Amino acid sequence: MSTAPTLDPYWSRLADRWEAADRQDPTLWPGHTGPLSNDELQAYAEQGFRYSPGLFSSDEVVSWRTEAERLIAALEGTKRGVIREPRSNAVRSIFRIHRISPIFQRVCADLRISDIARQMLGSDVYLHQSRINFKPGFDGREFFWHSDFETWHVEDGMPRMRAVSVSISLTENTEFNGPLMVVPGSHKTFIRCQGETPENHFEQSLKQQEYGVPSREALEMLIERHEGLHAVKGPAGSALFFECNLMHGSAGNLSPYPRTNLFFVFNSVENAVQDPYGQQPPRPEYLAERDVIPVGDLSEHTELYV
Amino acid sequence: MSTAPTLDPYWSRLADRWEAADRQDPTLWPGHTGPLSNDELQAYAEQGFRYSPGLFSSDEVVSWRTEAERLIAALEGTKRGVIREPRSNAVRSIFRIHRISPIFQRVCADLRISDIARQMLGSDVYLHQSRINFKPGFDGREFFWHSDFETWHVEDGMPRMRAVSVSISLTENTEFNGPLMVVPGSHKTFIRCQGETPENHFEQSLKQQEYGVPSREALEMLIERHEGLHAVKGPAGSALFFECNLMHGSAGNLSPYPRTNLFFVFNSVENAVQDPYGQQPPRPEYLAERDVIPVGDLSEHTELYV
Repeated sequence: MSTAPTLDPYWSRLADRWEAADRQDPTLWPGHTGPLSNDELQAYAEQGFRYSPGLFSSDEVVSWRTEAERLIAALEGTKRGVIREPRSNAVRSIFRIHRISPIFQRVCADLRISDIARQMLGSDVYLHQSRINFKPGFDGREFFWHSDFETWHVEDGMPRMRAVSVSISLTENTEFNGPLMVVPGSHKTFIRCQGETPENHFEQSLKQQEYGVPSREALEMLIERHEGLHAVKGPAGSALFFECNLMHGSAGNLSPYPRTNLFFVFNSVENAVQDPYGQQPPRPEYLAERDVIPVGDLSEHTELYV
Repeated sequence: MSTAPTLDPYWSRLADRWEAADRQDPTLWPGHTGPLSNDELQAYAEQGFRYSPGLFSSDEVVSWRTEAERLIAALEGTKRGVIREPRSNAVRSIFRIHRISPIFQRVCADLRISDIARQMLGSDVYLHQSRINFKPGFDGREFFWHSDFETWHVEDGMPRMRAVSVSISLTENTEFNGPLMVVPGSHKTFIRCQGETPENHFEQSLKQQEYGVPSREALEMLIERHEGLHAVKGPAGSALFFECNLMHGSAGNLSPYPRTNLFFVFNSVENAVQDPYGQQPPRPEYLAERDVIPVGDLSEHTELYV
């Protein structure tokens, strides 16, 4: 392990109780200019997210939906990096799209998002993770509240809070199809999740399910301390930038309208992952990239194209 | 069985495919005056629901929350009519509150709701079912789309569409705590649910779960044919009247805010339940009342008070 638990400011899952800790890193890292104004940057630093409705055109959205369908067909029978519904076998997620698709490689290198990521993180950036998420109508699943950084730190070895996720909607997001919900300002607080309690063996499987999940009590505190809840709704082609430690989740999709989005995690090239801070071996590369390729150079890496 | 399947206009769960049928009953039954204007009645007939924000005062809401807590304590250890969460043992629903609580007996007899029920149904009314629902913060469960009438007809023997439900919110309903979603106008269409297919034995348990649930295809048709989706949101103390065949459902509650409501099903005294139209024995009385007591006379029935 890289660091002794007590020296790691972001230790988690080591005690049998949750704990709130102050963020130890800036949200805005100096060192790189970009398209956002000071006011826009300050709003992002305060809220932990920035929403740009209609950043991409409907032609772009249509072509990306087509590319998503092409990937589903091309990856028929593939297990690695493709998550399917247990019952229907429908594809729920395709990972590492920044390596396997030339079109999505160009999307994440697009200056409308990558330049903002560089500006926020104060350096060049690479992709820590990328995926397409399909949240089908009627059966789209709920995702409970979590901080991505907590997982990326403990399980992937991401050292500091110096990453930003960009979610690009390929369908309209409404109150009905399980939009992303965030706790504005929550990126300023790090929730150490309660760890396993191996002395209660009979509860093991129950606890396992809750591993890396903040407790209800922690969430109540966080929502109270910060600014309640916000649901991100808007047209297809919108982009949501959200800080790696922002608490977020989404309800199930009971509507007939699918919710599909591209998801790119930009990490600073100066914040590349190390050994995981937790006790487990690192997760596979499709979940946590270990090739630090600046997004501008991705098109030179065509060996995984499908 | 009361009726041969082919003579029952509302047969369901008998074929291996769903089917849409026109409603055979009026939404507004003549014969009883009441507080609603003609325009208000017409809007209800068109939409299948009527929402009255803040119909009850906050004092009333507080006293009903107190009564709900008293019932939880008084029913400690009781199984019949009390539904608990499997894991936490927390109470999710208490049934038959129109018989076990003098306070809730007065609520359902309150003229602000019972007079409207009489006016809509064109006769005196009795309670087919009543309950308190507790949808706790973070863990409130999703309820998939369904028509109550389909169940009440097949499983309880309710002959015609001549009932109206009233849901009174004891907490605020927001986009975050899994508000009721309805398909406006859908009460005009009866969806016959697909039945079991006993020839596919290996799928039995899967089918069982979907028993009495409209297919995704039927729901798409219904939402398309009628007017999309509507989520019912508003302050505590609001009342939602909704027609017994209105398609409705609700997503899970991922917020910290509980969603608690009183739920009363007013049925016309001329529409009392008979033998179930389906193949099963009738459900217990706490789910389907068989004592036809006009709501005005409920206070004479104190024998079940807890």
